[in-house]
Amino acid sequence: MSTHSLTHGYNTRCAQVLYDFTAEPGNNELSVRQGETVTTVGGGWIKAQNSSGQTGLVPEGYLQVREASFTAAVRHLYDLISILVDVSRSRWLSVDPGGCQFPFSKGPSPEVFLLAKPPANSRDRLPVYMGEVGPVWLYPLAPLDCVIADPKKESKLYGLKSFIEYQITPNTTNRPVNHRYKHFDWLYERLLGKFGSALPIPSLPDKQVTGRFEDDFIRMRMEQLQAWMTRMCRHPVVSQSEVFQLFLTYRDEKEWKAGKRKAERDETVGPMIFSLIEPEAPELDPAEVEQQCELYSRFTKSMDEGVKELLNVGNTHWKRFTGPLPKEYERIGRAFRNLSTVFISSKYPGEETLTDALTAAGKTYEQIAEIVAQQPEKDLHFLLETNNEYKGLLGCFPEIIAVHKAAVKEVDRLVSAGRINSNDRKFMNQRISCMSYSLHAEMNHFHSNRIYDYNRVMQLYLRQQVTFYQQIADKLRGALRQFTTL
Amino acid sequence: MSTHSLTHGYNTRCAQVLYDFTAEPGNNELSVRQGETVTTVGGGWIKAQNSSGQTGLVPEGYLQVREASFTAAVRHLYDLISILVDVSRSRWLSVDPGGCQFPFSKGPSPEVFLLAKPPANSRDRLPVYMGEVGPVWLYPLAPLDCVIADPKKESKLYGLKSFIEYQITPNTTNRPVNHRYKHFDWLYERLLGKFGSALPIPSLPDKQVTGRFEDDFIRMRMEQLQAWMTRMCRHPVVSQSEVFQLFLTYRDEKEWKAGKRKAERDETVGPMIFSLIEPEAPELDPAEVEQQCELYSRFTKSMDEGVKELLNVGNTHWKRFTGPLPKEYERIGRAFRNLSTVFISSKYPGEETLTDALTAAGKTYEQIAEIVAQQPEKDLHFLLETNNEYKGLLGCFPEIIAVHKAAVKEVDRLVSAGRINSNDRKFMNQRISCMSYSLHAEMNHFHSNRIYDYNRVMQLYLRQQVTFYQQIADKLRGALRQFTTL
Repeated sequence: MSTHSLTHGYNTRCAQVLYDFTAEPGNNELSVRQGETVTTVGGGWIKAQNSSGQTGLVPEGYLQVREASFTAAVRHLYDLISILVDVSRSRWLSVDPGGCQFPFSKGPSPEVFLLAKPPANSRDRLPVYMGEVGPVWLYPLAPLDCVIADPKKESKLYGLKSFIEYQITPNTTNRPVNHRYKHFDWLYERLLGKFGSALPIPSLPDKQVTGRFEDDFIRMRMEQLQAWMTRMCRHPVVSQSEVFQLFLTYRDEKEWKAGKRKAERDETVGPMIFSLIEPEAPELDPAEVEQQCELYSRFTKSMDEGVKELLNVGNTHWKRFTGPLPKEYERIGRAFRNLSTVFISSKYPGEETLTDALTAAGKTYEQIAEIVAQQPEKDLHFLLETNNEYKGLLGCFPEIIAVHKAAVKEVDRLVSAGRINSNDRKFMNQRISCMSYSLHAEMNHFHSNRIYDYNRVMQLYLRQQVTFYQQIADKLRGALRQFTTL
Repeated sequence: MSTHSLTHGYNTRCAQVLYDFTAEPGNNELSVRQGETVTTVGGGWIKAQNSSGQTGLVPEGYLQVREASFTAAVRHLYDLISILVDVSRSRWLSVDPGGCQFPFSKGPSPEVFLLAKPPANSRDRLPVYMGEVGPVWLYPLAPLDCVIADPKKESKLYGLKSFIEYQITPNTTNRPVNHRYKHFDWLYERLLGKFGSALPIPSLPDKQVTGRFEDDFIRMRMEQLQAWMTRMCRHPVVSQSEVFQLFLTYRDEKEWKAGKRKAERDETVGPMIFSLIEPEAPELDPAEVEQQCELYSRFTKSMDEGVKELLNVGNTHWKRFTGPLPKEYERIGRAFRNLSTVFISSKYPGEETLTDALTAAGKTYEQIAEIVAQQPEKDLHFLLETNNEYKGLLGCFPEIIAVHKAAVKEVDRLVSAGRINSNDRKFMNQRISCMSYSLHAEMNHFHSNRIYDYNRVMQLYLRQQVTFYQQIADKLRGALRQFTTL
């Protein structure tokens, strides 16, 4: 993880203040008034000096250093993105919903994003730092985690409506809060609306109409909700967001309801999320951005295919291990035991050792049948769940990357058409660089999680597989010992 | 195994000699002349004393102690048997050829058997002794065995006809003889004709028209011929027979051709085989015979069902282990390796340990696929081959038992109808007792072989299964070690 560093070497530029901004004390920020002219010293987060000679950070979006022609060019760019999004969304829906639904259309239009006043609250800002692996999000010192437990059937309206309420305990407060599936769904919609343009927000486990009060279903859904919450908790941007914190730490019904209303009124949603990105590092070279984009695109596509193939064969394997294979071992076991019974019926003297051993061998294969049938729950289950999660995450990337790529391409096109001047071009590169930092940070987050998750799940899988085969070998060794050596 | 013991306590009876008989020196035999009257002191093999006071053994069939009415009653009995045999043979052929074809109709008619002169050569006689487990055949002190090896493609008629010649080396002479499949088939036909009414003679491996010169087929056929020869060698009656010894020990083409002609002229075939049975023990109680028959019938039927079920599930198991299961392991392995390749393409730093381990895990599952696919050849193969042999043997018993049962029943019927006098009845009981001794001896031979064979094959199977699962567990343990502990 990276620590915040302000060493950079941008050229200074003059800038006009578009909106009032009130600095938060102790944050090295600078209060500026609309119409004021300042000198810029930085990138996305801009260190500015006012006419009085005071210096401090000002969010880039608060400052305008461009001519009027800029707005049209950027609008053109975002129009294109909107079209692209619509195209990819329709393709998306017709192919495979994967884990995500594309949320771009839920946010305000691109113009609103470009002209809107950015949030005054600095805790919403999304800094991107330079870590060892490149751009990274700001990670909290203590990772957030939560435990979902104790599902209870509750009812309201004098028992007319029944639902399951889960107890969620975050490690930060160690104080449980209660939520039903409906609330998880509400949280999902908020996260999707707010972050879905920049981060993959995987779907919740499916809604289910029938059997939702059965113990097995409740256990399975709780496990899936736990996996979803764990992944959200592990994301530095999602986990630190106001809405997510509200969900985990609200103290009473009043606070919950108030928080809900506030979250539903949040306007920094959809593409607006990019206005919050604050990279510490210099603007990225467009050629490098394009190359990285290509790499991410190929990577997520290949991994998506790889994960799906593993899921395919894993599901086939699951069916075999819970269906025909244990049935076969059971039949083998029964065949041995039947033979033993037949042998006993011969009344031929002195074959007790054989018939006892044959019975034992039969029972062993019947036990193996049970072991085989129960094994997928112990190993394949986790391998498939992890890959299912990754399928969901990977399903979100094509759109995020497509928008990014299109933005890069469009800038190139506008430049070659000679329709924008060099200042516009610089600004556009800056915006794209900002989006690109977001993508980089997210890809790096994804990679570091991927390494952790696959390391963990492969070890779990192999450890269980070793135990499985070892257990069978030991059982068979025991059965073999019952036979007399010839 | 029993040793020959002559302690018995038959009542003495007067008997008239029907045919000349020349005693073999040193065999405690007695030469008698047709028309002579002697006193009987024994059962099937009869110790007789002549008018000079000399005592010795005379084959029972050489002596007549019955009235004329006997012949008609016995003929009636054997007519019935012939009908039964025809009935059961037609049922047989329409159901499942199993290992045997019923050979009764190949022999001479029952009258011939009853009136024919028994063989003069005492080495053809089939003594039945009382062992610890009841009636048993006379087992040779050194068990016969042979090794089939070195299949060679030979041709005759200037290359117009090609065939495979096998080298068979018996442990008695340690001198190899050559035979082609056609000769094995000739031997089978002789054994079936001569012993098939009393002993199960399992079929040879099927003739094959196409691909019979391919290496795999030759290897498989040789293995099956070896199994068939080993089983025949282990049978005390078959292995000591002249025709079988000829097959294994002929010294030159001339001896082989002469032996063949002699064997083809052999008249002690079909039901005549029962005339050779010489039980040392007293006549069996008809009630006990019937009870034993019932037991054998139930036993062989149940074992036949048990063996067939094991073969069924074994064949299903074989297909799974050589088909879909290894394909699945291979796909899992490939999926892991693909993921590893995709992960490497991410260019994310520091994940070599994971990608190397994932590749190793992938290769491990690909190796497991091979191990799985090759396993049936190493264990299931022998389990199935043994059970196939037993299916063949068991397929011969219903007819042998049915004839026996019918004989018992018919005696009962004739008795209740008052159609035979008490002397006839005694003789018939003696004949049935004789057949029954043969069946008992054969069942005891079968049981002792069965115990040996199933003990051996189950140990082989389980030992290989242990190795199989242990090998997989060890391989997976190796793959697991490649992952870094979290």
